[in-house]
Amino acid sequence: MKDFLFYAPTEVQFGKQSEELVAQLVKKYGGTKVLLHYGGQSAKRSGLLDKVCGLLKEAGVEYVELGGVVPNPRLSKVKEGIALCRELGVDFILAVGGGSVIDSSKAIAYGVPYEGDVWDFYVGKAEAETCLPVATVLTIPAAGSEMSEASVITNEDGDIKLGYSNNISRPKFAIMNPERTFTLPAYQTAAGVTDIMLHTMERYFNPDCDMTVTDAIAEALMRTMMDSVFAVLENPEDYRNRAQIMWAGSLAHNDVTGNRLNGDWATHQIEHELSAMFDVTHGAGLAVVWPSWARYVMKENVSRFVRFAVNVTGVENDFTDPEGTALKGIEAMKRFYRAIGMPTTIRELIGRDITEEEIKEMASKCTRGDKIAHGRFKKLKAADIEEIYRMAR
Amino acid sequence: MKDFLFYAPTEVQFGKQSEELVAQLVKKYGGTKVLLHYGGQSAKRSGLLDKVCGLLKEAGVEYVELGGVVPNPRLSKVKEGIALCRELGVDFILAVGGGSVIDSSKAIAYGVPYEGDVWDFYVGKAEAETCLPVATVLTIPAAGSEMSEASVITNEDGDIKLGYSNNISRPKFAIMNPERTFTLPAYQTAAGVTDIMLHTMERYFNPDCDMTVTDAIAEALMRTMMDSVFAVLENPEDYRNRAQIMWAGSLAHNDVTGNRLNGDWATHQIEHELSAMFDVTHGAGLAVVWPSWARYVMKENVSRFVRFAVNVTGVENDFTDPEGTALKGIEAMKRFYRAIGMPTTIRELIGRDITEEEIKEMASKCTRGDKIAHGRFKKLKAADIEEIYRMAR
Repeated sequence: MKDFLFYAPTEVQFGKQSEELVAQLVKKYGGTKVLLHYGGQSAKRSGLLDKVCGLLKEAGVEYVELGGVVPNPRLSKVKEGIALCRELGVDFILAVGGGSVIDSSKAIAYGVPYEGDVWDFYVGKAEAETCLPVATVLTIPAAGSEMSEASVITNEDGDIKLGYSNNISRPKFAIMNPERTFTLPAYQTAAGVTDIMLHTMERYFNPDCDMTVTDAIAEALMRTMMDSVFAVLENPEDYRNRAQIMWAGSLAHNDVTGNRLNGDWATHQIEHELSAMFDVTHGAGLAVVWPSWARYVMKENVSRFVRFAVNVTGVENDFTDPEGTALKGIEAMKRFYRAIGMPTTIRELIGRDITEEEIKEMASKCTRGDKIAHGRFKKLKAADIEEIYRMAR
Repeated sequence: MKDFLFYAPTEVQFGKQSEELVAQLVKKYGGTKVLLHYGGQSAKRSGLLDKVCGLLKEAGVEYVELGGVVPNPRLSKVKEGIALCRELGVDFILAVGGGSVIDSSKAIAYGVPYEGDVWDFYVGKAEAETCLPVATVLTIPAAGSEMSEASVITNEDGDIKLGYSNNISRPKFAIMNPERTFTLPAYQTAAGVTDIMLHTMERYFNPDCDMTVTDAIAEALMRTMMDSVFAVLENPEDYRNRAQIMWAGSLAHNDVTGNRLNGDWATHQIEHELSAMFDVTHGAGLAVVWPSWARYVMKENVSRFVRFAVNVTGVENDFTDPEGTALKGIEAMKRFYRAIGMPTTIRELIGRDITEEEIKEMASKCTRGDKIAHGRFKKLKAADIEEIYRMAR
């Protein structure tokens, strides 16, 4: 059994009253001059930004605003934030939004005290030794960045999307009010749940499979999501089920459902190329990739897929036919994706047939010209990844 | 749905190699002069204490030893520790042992910077504003103190056992090597698993029952324990199952399985009096109390007990007879306790019949002369608690 680290220091304040605590939490964690980082107009329109500003003002905490973070957050915005923080002596970064805003905040936090180029961390040239404290008022569940050590940034110069993980950037606190997720559209809600489940599945399909209590917890989380998502698609203001999804989004990425480093992550890597080439929603891309990935790698450990089929998707175990049961589980996931409005083929995802050239280009980019492999459950090279794209066509 | 706080900042290093990190972790969290706090001779005999001392010496970290912590840790030992720390300028407390040693360490940590009597915190006269950093090398799973904010101390002067909870005392790090638990005797192992499950059950049987994802996680943890315990009773050196139990011990008390403040805790309170009067093992006392508590309170929310019966103990759901199904679940727990060598009656626990006077005395102590009630699932006064003791006879 592999040794592991569990480290989830973020103070989570969860519920309807949680936002009221924002100023006192900023002070508790040493913030005196805050960068309020956010995305588009929704944080303004919803009144959340005004509320946070009002509470900070009331508490005598200075702040400066920087909006405009986009999905797949950009390095240029990160650099703008770093310059602003240095100029004004900002000592705390508060992300108001979802994963993109938090990831952008983490990058700014690394960059402010660092003399070199912040991109150094993402390309592996340097390790951050210190960073500004980051915290968040979360409005979109799924990314899990509110408790995680990960951040993914896109460098427009060459369109390269890279991640950097460092425990020093785990948010100090996360304020989560499920009411803020009532306005999330159905498609984004379904894509979010797909992503939450995939964060768990990437950990669940690992080559070791020996931490039974963690496996059972992961299954519990996934089963709950497969139930809660229908409730909120039916009634977007179902507080209780919005709460399940929001909290599960954090648990799926804070390592309670398995250690990130032991996970597979090939599905994420394969999907990243789809997002990059066709600008599709990450969760929707995952729904397209996972079933093909699963069929392609299944024989590495059929019993694991049988366990998933029975304990997560609820199919009957045919003890005489493990492979058949495993395949039924994968089919059940496809039906689930369809039922919540997710695409299950690339054609549905991008609205047309994908070409062989595009498939080869994505597989090549994904493996940096077949120089690296992905996946721990089964190691995948460019030819494997091409085949998975073809199966998902 | 109730708002909640989730805060589990402890850095957990889990596995065979974890002990090697002790000196670098002490340094990381600011320790320069360490109190090495431990219990009896087992930490010495096993070589663990020598190992820790060697690593600290090698890293140039000063330390002083204070052993002799007993189960139900004593206030006198805490005061001895406080005096020693002050005299020598200790700035970090490292608990090598189980729950008692960690609880004693937390009390010392509160006491050192406090001008008054440390007992003030336990009787509710004062709130600790600061404390020394505490960390642990865990050798006995179950208490969960390695990630929790709780500490229970016994004041020999009047034999009063009181708890104090404060988030500032959550350990900075916890080193957990399942190999250290191989030598735990069968009875202590079974009592430990009983305690781990009860920490989860106290949270599970709450009056709100609305956090589905948390309930499902709690069930997953309990089911795993009911399986793993038999494996380690059969083979005490089963690393994988010792690991499940050790990690579940932390998860059962770090609030992943439910918020402590929303839990019931009556079973714990009722058991505390048995431990205090007859000096029995806490986990064994819980095995005696819980089935009677369950039968006594069941009608408050039968469907909750049905869910427990079906999802945790695995009994068949008789949809025509919810109460019957609930009772079958309670009976299944009793059978489980017997199967792992736990007592299920007070007679078995203390080796003789309990008297009516003793029952009345315990119920009175438990409720401070019927002035306070216990339990959130159902509020219990002295007369209720007497009845539960009688049912458990």
